[in-house]
Amino acid sequence: MFKNFLALICIVFALPLHAQNQSDDALFIKKIYNHILTDGACYNWLSDLSTDVGGRLAGSEGADAAVLFTKAIMDTLGLDRVYLQDCMVPHWERGSAEHVSATTQAGLQKTLKATALGNSPAGKASAEIIEVFSLEEVEKLGSKGIAGKIVFYNRPMDPTQIRTFNAYGGAVDQRGRGPAMAARFGAVGAVVRSMTTKTDNVPHTGVTIFGDDPQIPAVAVSTMHADWLSAELKKGSVSISIETHCQILPDKASHNVIGEIIGDTYPEKIILVGGHLDSWDLGGGAHDDGSGCVHAMQVLHSMRALGYRPKHTIRCVLFMNEENGLGGATAYANASNAKSEFHMAALESDAGGFTPRGFSVDGDNSIFAEKFKAMTEWLPLLEPFGLSLSKGGGGADINPLKSQKGVLIGFRPDSQRYFDYHHTADDTIDAVNQRELEMGAAAITSLIYLIDSYGL
Amino acid sequence: MFKNFLALICIVFALPLHAQNQSDDALFIKKIYNHILTDGACYNWLSDLSTDVGGRLAGSEGADAAVLFTKAIMDTLGLDRVYLQDCMVPHWERGSAEHVSATTQAGLQKTLKATALGNSPAGKASAEIIEVFSLEEVEKLGSKGIAGKIVFYNRPMDPTQIRTFNAYGGAVDQRGRGPAMAARFGAVGAVVRSMTTKTDNVPHTGVTIFGDDPQIPAVAVSTMHADWLSAELKKGSVSISIETHCQILPDKASHNVIGEIIGDTYPEKIILVGGHLDSWDLGGGAHDDGSGCVHAMQVLHSMRALGYRPKHTIRCVLFMNEENGLGGATAYANASNAKSEFHMAALESDAGGFTPRGFSVDGDNSIFAEKFKAMTEWLPLLEPFGLSLSKGGGGADINPLKSQKGVLIGFRPDSQRYFDYHHTADDTIDAVNQRELEMGAAAITSLIYLIDSYGL
Repeated sequence: MFKNFLALICIVFALPLHAQNQSDDALFIKKIYNHILTDGACYNWLSDLSTDVGGRLAGSEGADAAVLFTKAIMDTLGLDRVYLQDCMVPHWERGSAEHVSATTQAGLQKTLKATALGNSPAGKASAEIIEVFSLEEVEKLGSKGIAGKIVFYNRPMDPTQIRTFNAYGGAVDQRGRGPAMAARFGAVGAVVRSMTTKTDNVPHTGVTIFGDDPQIPAVAVSTMHADWLSAELKKGSVSISIETHCQILPDKASHNVIGEIIGDTYPEKIILVGGHLDSWDLGGGAHDDGSGCVHAMQVLHSMRALGYRPKHTIRCVLFMNEENGLGGATAYANASNAKSEFHMAALESDAGGFTPRGFSVDGDNSIFAEKFKAMTEWLPLLEPFGLSLSKGGGGADINPLKSQKGVLIGFRPDSQRYFDYHHTADDTIDAVNQRELEMGAAAITSLIYLIDSYGL
Repeated sequence: MFKNFLALICIVFALPLHAQNQSDDALFIKKIYNHILTDGACYNWLSDLSTDVGGRLAGSEGADAAVLFTKAIMDTLGLDRVYLQDCMVPHWERGSAEHVSATTQAGLQKTLKATALGNSPAGKASAEIIEVFSLEEVEKLGSKGIAGKIVFYNRPMDPTQIRTFNAYGGAVDQRGRGPAMAARFGAVGAVVRSMTTKTDNVPHTGVTIFGDDPQIPAVAVSTMHADWLSAELKKGSVSISIETHCQILPDKASHNVIGEIIGDTYPEKIILVGGHLDSWDLGGGAHDDGSGCVHAMQVLHSMRALGYRPKHTIRCVLFMNEENGLGGATAYANASNAKSEFHMAALESDAGGFTPRGFSVDGDNSIFAEKFKAMTEWLPLLEPFGLSLSKGGGGADINPLKSQKGVLIGFRPDSQRYFDYHHTADDTIDAVNQRELEMGAAAITSLIYLIDSYGL
């Protein structure tokens, strides 16, 4: 009875304090939203980054310009430190435009909407194509079935996946490792169906990795032209000519761009928020991942504008070279570990500038359950803004920090339109809705505020 | 103890059944999503409706064409009944394009991006403008401040509202009743800031209601030009010339389009799913509300395609004349009440073809709490698809059914982009993303399935 009474006392006294905090938090989160939805800078930054700077593949002049451009913005935000961190990145160049054409058995010739994949060598290949739907199929066919041919990977992304990233994950091995597998068995070129659920005439590039396998010209074709090839193959053989002019040059020095506000109370505990600064060369990298970069910079901008002094160090990191090598992420984690830093939390936004749905949370097994539970206490503050928490990956650039045993968080916006633009010439500011982008920045700033307020 | 034992028995035996049902339901809902995301017809229907039929204001030829077009589609779906229901609708015509220009005190002349509001009369007005921010302000200024002038309503939609419909609700009285209020005090014309949070040069039309007040030419101007007017007014007086060529013609006969599958077990209990078939004349009415129409038709299409035999009667209703009079909704409710029908549930989709976030639920006080609670039992089946349930309005066309004491449901998609297109020339198929539209149709079909399975 006495124990129950004590428990009751605790509840009675605890409730008002808890309620008070929640109400203060709710007010501050509303302030964050109000600030970003009325005075947010992220959309204009993204417009300039994706249009004036444009495509910025690691090693390119665009990437150098993006480093200078975002550092210059951060220099205006009144931060405690803004600096560049050295890293080495691969340097692949597309060169002049690739050309891919098909000739059917009936003699019909067609130029295909195609784009060289990152790491494709320069080369010419002309051969009959063989359509396959998996890497396993190529292995089974072996040299006898593959040698001298161009392998055409045509397994579509599964449109019934609700989250399109799962559909991507289920198909992208064809682009990432398919050309290498084809080359291993003597293929002279590889053609991959573009990674999108949309049926259109826009080719999607992205990285392919040859490793120790022979390098062969490797391209992606639009889904419409992939469907056309498939239909023609039902009538008879089809041969394809590929011409690429790519170059793999020596690795190059580049930079992560970092800005931070030093924590008032726990300066040694770091809350990282970031995206990746590099993009593919075809478009302006607006959703992938200019959005993530401006989201992260908006966090610092809003904290300063609202006069918020964080307890912990809030560090914005724009990682170089997520797309084809993680040179920036590796350099960052190595430097951080060498200094025995502790990232209490690291959040990456790399899923586009769409309406936020929530966050996925990850972390070392030794800490995950407890930290995730603590975060779910914040749900009453997040749900009014349409935000939920789920278990899932943080992000490619922050994953190397997992060993520091902080929490890794991935920003999860609505995913329906992401693969309409991903790695294409259409990933420009026109594909970004200002309110959706700002809602994402506000969601992220709010979560960073809660992490800073309560610790993790 | 025996009671507890009984309770335990009940739990033990009840759980597997419940779990079994939930698992069957989950499988069927997944089937619905798979069907619509791979073989859904709604996007192609919407493309034709918004492009080939195009704008379809009640009373127009477009509206007549839309009736024939959607009935013809329903005729192909293998339904038990497809029919037209008579209704009377107002008949307002824009006539040749309106012209609105401004002259500043400094002599600068500018043609404004403007559109006549529905119910505006034809007319010419030239006068100095007075900027106001509310109807109350006009009342306070009275005839002395208003007579002979053109009133310029310029209170923006509040960008800090998370759900943009709330921002719309907070500003739209200026368009709906502002011109009448201005006319009451002797204004010769009215100019209203377009109803959008976006700053652009696209004017948004919509209905204005004069009632017993004098009719004066009334237009909406783009938000950019509203901002320009406001800035010029800070420097000196501004006069505006309005010329409209609208006509208010006699009421006209039109139709609701209805298709239904008769219930196997409870044919007398109706589950209605609908949208409104009319749109404004400027664009193609793709989001408003072609999306709602094709969502509703997709429900029937998927039920037939999946071989699902509903227990209750599933009735798809495409209402005529939501935008400027509710002629179709009134005729429908009157006919339904005359036949003593019972709508166990009625769902309207009239918030666009964007990614679904859930449903708002409404109903007569005598039944609401119990029915809402019953629906929340389905949340474990809906949440995996990003769907929630909230308390809130059903929809303008189904509200007259409230007295039948069934449940009224509003489809709630993401609202961030809706007012970029609402009532503009940009509300075309290009503004609709196929996957987002299909996800909405799948969400609605799933909820209709649950209502049919469990009753309400």
